[in-house]
Amino acid sequence: MSIKSINARNQFHGKIVEIVTGPVVSEVDIETPTGLITSIISTRSIAKLELKTGSEVIAFVKSTDIALAKL
Amino acid sequence: MSIKSINARNQFHGKIVEIVTGPVVSEVDIETPTGLITSIISTRSIAKLELKTGSEVIAFVKSTDIALAKL
Amino acid sequence: MSIKSINARNQFHGKIVEIVTGPVVSEVDIETPTGLITSIISTRSIAKLELKTGSEVIAFVKSTDIALAKL
Amino acid sequence: MSIKSINARNQFHGKIVEIVTGPVVSEVDIETPTGLITSIISTRSIAKLELKTGSEVIAFVKSTDIALAKL
Amino acid sequence: MSIKSINARNQFHGKIVEIVTGPVVSEVDIETPTGLITSIISTRSIAKLELKTGSEVIAFVKSTDIALAKL
Amino acid sequence: MSIKSINARNQFHGKIVEIVTGPVVSEVDIETPTGLITSIISTRSIAKLELKTGSEVIAFVKSTDIALAKL
Repeated sequence: MSIKSINARNQFHGKIVEIVTGPVVSEVDIETPTGLITSIISTRSIAKLELKTGSEVIAFVKSTDIALAKL
Repeated sequence: MSIKSINARNQFHGKIVEIVTGPVVSEVDIETPTGLITSIISTRSIAKLELKTGSEVIAFVKSTDIALAKL
Repeated sequence: MSIKSINARNQFHGKIVEIVTGPVVSEVDIETPTGLITSIISTRSIAKLELKTGSEVIAFVKSTDIALAKL
Repeated sequence: MSIKSINARNQFHGKIVEIVTGPVVSEVDIETPTGLITSIISTRSIAKLELKTGSEVIAFVKSTDIALAKL
Repeated sequence: MSIKSINARNQFHGKIVEIVTGPVVSEVDIETPTGLITSIISTRSIAKLELKTGSEVIAFVKSTDIALAKL
Repeated sequence: MSIKSINARNQFHGKIVEIVTGPVVSEVDIETPTGLITSIISTRSIAKLELKTGSEVIAFVKSTDIALAKL
């Protein structure tokens, strides 16, 4: 089953450069043209998706999860 | 009261290029050096922060809110 | 670009049965084998993904966004 | 104090089948008619709610936290 | 079916003082002993829970959804 | 770079009273006039912001992340 597209407006295409593994959640650092993006997902998802350093991924986030600060 | 820094790991500095106003929430599009970021926040926050096209902002999101898709 | 899989542990496969359109966000009701799932996404995403009643979708949510109540 | 109902539109009634305990957050797997639902909550909440394998719970998630992918 | 307790660590007990209704989501302002809390939920949930000014509610949020800023 | 204000409507000013450190995420308990607020953020953010017991912080959360339960 392949997925054509995801509704999340904010998508960052890049490569995994580091994974910090924890017992329940793990941190995944992705190098993208925008700079380093950090995602925290369940450790089981990392195994299920067979993610490792060098894997090509899209990091995405819903608009409702993005906050703004005024400078 | 000024805020030194925010814990969110993912921060995107840019300028507002469009605001789509709704009765309760509004969409804010921010032009960053590497592309458009879209945030949806409460319409009252837009008024309170006096956000408008051209305002300089930081868009930020917690790592736990970023999902990953494998290519 | 096709996406093999998404990290979100909780995925619900179904068909869109109703869309309530708002100026900024819209409600999408998805009929799955075991009941109705409701998602609220940006109205622009609905247009971009060309979602309409009858579209086949996967609704997904990160484990960190699921709360629990004890009976 | 008993709670009559929760606003979250998406509610999944089921039984806990596994808990993976971490120092700060823990993963809770719930068997529901919809299949396995996975929640990640703070480890302290698990203790406070006295959750264990076999506990009857409702897993719930806000519509704004549900993303969609088109097939 | 009554709910004994919810895992969310952060719970604020109070009364609704205002509802701003939108076509898809609505803003609900809750007066608590220590100030105003604002929630944005789906407009259908407001109808389903029969929420109105004066209703007694608990506003709650998961720890993973709370960000921190250093002063 | 100092931040004038953040869009999140719900802000809680207080002092850190405890940090429970994990390999990937850590729990931060903040004493505020509203009572104890618990945030879970990435452990790297704690180091980056140099947060420790006694640090003065603002805990904040977007309105879309706040759910409601009717009593």
